[in-house]
Amino acid sequence: MGIHKYFQSLSDLEGIYRCPGVFKYQEHSVASHSFKVATIAQFLATVEDRNGQSVDWKKVYERAINHDYSELFTGDIKTPVKYALPKLRELFSQVEGSMTQEFLDKEIPMEFRKVYEERFKEGKDDSLEGKILSVADKIDLLYEAYGEIQKGNPESLFFQIYREALESILKFKDLVSVRYFIQVILREMIDEEAKSHTYIKSITNQLLSETAEG
Amino acid sequence: MGIHKYFQSLSDLEGIYRCPGVFKYQEHSVASHSFKVATIAQFLATVEDRNGQSVDWKKVYERAINHDYSELFTGDIKTPVKYALPKLRELFSQVEGSMTQEFLDKEIPMEFRKVYEERFKEGKDDSLEGKILSVADKIDLLYEAYGEIQKGNPESLFFQIYREALESILKFKDLVSVRYFIQVILREMIDEEAKSHTYIKSITNQLLSETAEG
Amino acid sequence: MGIHKYFQSLSDLEGIYRCPGVFKYQEHSVASHSFKVATIAQFLATVEDRNGQSVDWKKVYERAINHDYSELFTGDIKTPVKYALPKLRELFSQVEGSMTQEFLDKEIPMEFRKVYEERFKEGKDDSLEGKILSVADKIDLLYEAYGEIQKGNPESLFFQIYREALESILKFKDLVSVRYFIQVILREMIDEEAKSHTYIKSITNQLLSETAEG
Amino acid sequence: MGIHKYFQSLSDLEGIYRCPGVFKYQEHSVASHSFKVATIAQFLATVEDRNGQSVDWKKVYERAINHDYSELFTGDIKTPVKYALPKLRELFSQVEGSMTQEFLDKEIPMEFRKVYEERFKEGKDDSLEGKILSVADKIDLLYEAYGEIQKGNPESLFFQIYREALESILKFKDLVSVRYFIQVILREMIDEEAKSHTYIKSITNQLLSETAEG
Amino acid sequence: MGIHKYFQSLSDLEGIYRCPGVFKYQEHSVASHSFKVATIAQFLATVEDRNGQSVDWKKVYERAINHDYSELFTGDIKTPVKYALPKLRELFSQVEGSMTQEFLDKEIPMEFRKVYEERFKEGKDDSLEGKILSVADKIDLLYEAYGEIQKGNPESLFFQIYREALESILKFKDLVSVRYFIQVILREMIDEEAKSHTYIKSITNQLLSETAEG
Amino acid sequence: MGIHKYFQSLSDLEGIYRCPGVFKYQEHSVASHSFKVATIAQFLATVEDRNGQSVDWKKVYERAINHDYSELFTGDIKTPVKYALPKLRELFSQVEGSMTQEFLDKEIPMEFRKVYEERFKEGKDDSLEGKILSVADKIDLLYEAYGEIQKGNPESLFFQIYREALESILKFKDLVSVRYFIQVILREMIDEEAKSHTYIKSITNQLLSETAEG
Repeated sequence: MGIHKYFQSLSDLEGIYRCPGVFKYQEHSVASHSFKVATIAQFLATVEDRNGQSVDWKKVYERAINHDYSELFTGDIKTPVKYALPKLRELFSQVEGSMTQEFLDKEIPMEFRKVYEERFKEGKDDSLEGKILSVADKIDLLYEAYGEIQKGNPESLFFQIYREALESILKFKDLVSVRYFIQVILREMIDEEAKSHTYIKSITNQLLSETAEG
Repeated sequence: MGIHKYFQSLSDLEGIYRCPGVFKYQEHSVASHSFKVATIAQFLATVEDRNGQSVDWKKVYERAINHDYSELFTGDIKTPVKYALPKLRELFSQVEGSMTQEFLDKEIPMEFRKVYEERFKEGKDDSLEGKILSVADKIDLLYEAYGEIQKGNPESLFFQIYREALESILKFKDLVSVRYFIQVILREMIDEEAKSHTYIKSITNQLLSETAEG
Repeated sequence: MGIHKYFQSLSDLEGIYRCPGVFKYQEHSVASHSFKVATIAQFLATVEDRNGQSVDWKKVYERAINHDYSELFTGDIKTPVKYALPKLRELFSQVEGSMTQEFLDKEIPMEFRKVYEERFKEGKDDSLEGKILSVADKIDLLYEAYGEIQKGNPESLFFQIYREALESILKFKDLVSVRYFIQVILREMIDEEAKSHTYIKSITNQLLSETAEG
Repeated sequence: MGIHKYFQSLSDLEGIYRCPGVFKYQEHSVASHSFKVATIAQFLATVEDRNGQSVDWKKVYERAINHDYSELFTGDIKTPVKYALPKLRELFSQVEGSMTQEFLDKEIPMEFRKVYEERFKEGKDDSLEGKILSVADKIDLLYEAYGEIQKGNPESLFFQIYREALESILKFKDLVSVRYFIQVILREMIDEEAKSHTYIKSITNQLLSETAEG
Repeated sequence: MGIHKYFQSLSDLEGIYRCPGVFKYQEHSVASHSFKVATIAQFLATVEDRNGQSVDWKKVYERAINHDYSELFTGDIKTPVKYALPKLRELFSQVEGSMTQEFLDKEIPMEFRKVYEERFKEGKDDSLEGKILSVADKIDLLYEAYGEIQKGNPESLFFQIYREALESILKFKDLVSVRYFIQVILREMIDEEAKSHTYIKSITNQLLSETAEG
Repeated sequence: MGIHKYFQSLSDLEGIYRCPGVFKYQEHSVASHSFKVATIAQFLATVEDRNGQSVDWKKVYERAINHDYSELFTGDIKTPVKYALPKLRELFSQVEGSMTQEFLDKEIPMEFRKVYEERFKEGKDDSLEGKILSVADKIDLLYEAYGEIQKGNPESLFFQIYREALESILKFKDLVSVRYFIQVILREMIDEEAKSHTYIKSITNQLLSETAEG
């Protein structure tokens, strides 16, 4: 039924949750993830741009916004599967590909089909914009894992995800934006983690003694 | 880490939701589904038993309880995928198989391994118990779709699921329990659906007039 | 604490829900909304582009992605307030502005500040890209209201939102993309609404009679 | 549509959550908050009463129950806004005022209007009952923050809220009920916090050894 | 541990949901219910007051706020139980009584015990304030059922609850406030129900034609 | 309305949550609990079987699957009540019994009534299968408490539940399966608990240094 169906389908991405089947304090939908990846990619591209790289901005945004649309057809395949079995990911890519094509043929009017075929393609190639997408996708995953670890999630999987996300990011350390992430942003994260929490007792006592003196 | 890990993993099945990515009024976890399939299979086997069939009760329960445990490794793959692409289901079965084997090797102590290998196998074979599992699995799916339709879900997918679940059940109409389902239970469902709702206005007015007279 | 704080804050947008305080069957976060507005704006710009308009794609995406970031500081102000009191919206804009500036000064390193000042500005100006943002924002709001009406929400507010969103869109009917929305997409929506639901009873009876004959 | 509309609106207060946009382990609605403030105010007034103060009980309860009804019109404005910008709070009060008046004119029948105008007014004045409302409101806020800190919420905002709530309470230390809160209740809270958790291992080992001996 | 424990326990009432085990579109906690009963009782007492009845306002509020506190110890016993078995309710009252006494002895300091013993007693006696509590409690229950029916809940239990709540209210029709409820408020509810919904198609077409002419 | 009503009622068990009114990070429904008890009982019976005990497998599964069905009629009575007042549990059993009988008479066709009367009976007798049910029920309760403790739940009730569940299990230490639980599974749980968490900082620094060298 055309573009109406396409617009309506965006809401379904709000109901697909990432990493299903592991206890999480906070859930993240594919729709939210896409927003965050676009915002992170925007920052990385800004760093590249400032350092004299020629950035194709349209490609940066377009790839981030559309990179997980095909999860609409397949759902978010469980993390352990993703990590344990590279072969399945390949098969899954094929399936995603043919289901995406079916969707394009059925819902996208002929005049827009070619543009959307391009948009729904895997965007993680060797171009600067492809690399930025790869890194931004992993940075958001790393933040998802960090959020759980910070909140006290006892599931060791999140340490594993944090580690593997960081490993993937480090593979792109030839990018100036990745070096910025490592040297500045990651440092801020570690500092926050290390800073000892102020506890209720000390806050309370301090205020009480201040008041007593006043 | 052994059986502790196995017991703990049961809770993860409470966090895998069926049919992800479609709006539902009520969610159903894989854990709840397994309970309901076991209870439905129990009824079907009771009908068979009363009609002189020899029922292997251990098999009936065992298969129902364990039939979706391997979704722990793969998640609940999206319904449209399941319905659109039989080939993927096959590939998925293979993957599930090898991941289940990996789990068995790692967590289940040697002395119990053979028993659990048997339990985690696909149970939908041509035996009476295998057929009962197939039917019970579809009856619960049909009830999930019915629940959404009854609550006013505008998503046409649930009509499709209802229809396809019913078609699958009808393939087993050689079973006396399936005939009971069709002739008695489905009839009750249709009657409930047809019965016109009593509305607030009439209840209210009736009570008010009764009171006025009293 | 810089960009780490900025990245972390994106997750807070997943926890701000639109139209608080009215019963909804489905909630929508500001993060999800931003993703959907970017995807809708992308389509509108595609229509403009195909019709010979010169589209600044960077601006289209950039504005959509960042247009509600400042709700982080203020929350999503209640819909009735928005609709009843234009003066408050103005005051709110001022407050958002000063809080955004405070955030920029505190968290965004000097070298990126000017770029982000630009990004966090109100993007709904008279340029083609500004108009596309205005329309895309309202189309997503219209779809939110449509989703509730379709699911049977008795709250009349959603009819009001639907109507007011459509009125706002129609103000931009000089855009070819808006005319496409009205003549094609809205038509598809109305057709879907009109199509009578197939009911359980008919599906069931049809399948049963097909089987009986077989 | 009159009092029916007013009764119905109470349910909307169950859907407005306090402190939107910050991760919380436990959400609190404006309806629940109002109940808790009334219960806390009841205790504070009991302490005052026992110490010879003349308490106007009708005012104590009436103010607590109605003190946040006007959030129905505006939503719960984000905490950081509340804390960062006193000027906005003032503007907001004006807006709340005029929206409340509009609601009174439209929904409350003439015969009850004056009574409800009084009830929906800001109740935090300099009377004993006004002070009790101010303190009870902050004690519930302090407990909300304490609940998050206790559960391990890494967000520093909750320490800030705890501190600022306590500071506000201490401003009323001329009240005997506030001194009771500080000297008795807060002491109990700190003691609970300090008490070291008993861990699984020790419980387990103790029980096992007891059993072994038995 | 005293009043700290009592204040903390209020939050547990936010986690006890009414009518457990029946599908609902909207949940209501015991905390929210208490707030709403107090607000409804306030209105009923206002009507009585205006009609020359002498209202003990302290009693009206006090009973409403505290009337379900003891559910903390017992939970909200399932509706069908409540409706099917009056004898159990009696036994339950006894248990609630002894658990409440235990709580009083353990947590409430001696100096406040007598006051709280009075507050935690069953308040639905034959005094005007006792009758107002009985009616307000049922009006909120009626609104809960009405909310579900309006949203399309297919569960017939909600019609039964609506009917039984209304029957209970009508028993108090000697109260002028109950007659106001029946003659004015219930009339508004029925009118709202009867008013036919405006549909998307008509809104849309009307706006489109207005625009076409303009 | 017969078996249709029975099948439909299974879904209501998905909406009854265990231990209502205490803050939990993760909720568990009666339906999920039944599934987990059946799976745990299956393991315990496997151990017994391997050690030469004669296991009636039908009884093991049947009792586990059906053991909490009657909570449909009564809800999950609050844990503190369960623990504080043995007499109430007895009264409750009577009520459950009579409500279950009523359900049997109304919904279960005559031909199946006797079988279901048997199935809905209390299954925790002195037979091997009855003991296995008692133990499996407590093991799942222990895991629920363990899950909360592990996630940092400050509520001391969960330590109490853990302790009391373990005490109940230890009463059955004459069973070889219970000894296996104590000597092997509980040991694995304690080891997991003791193992110190790896922290973000160390993972990060390690990866960074590995990369720096590479």
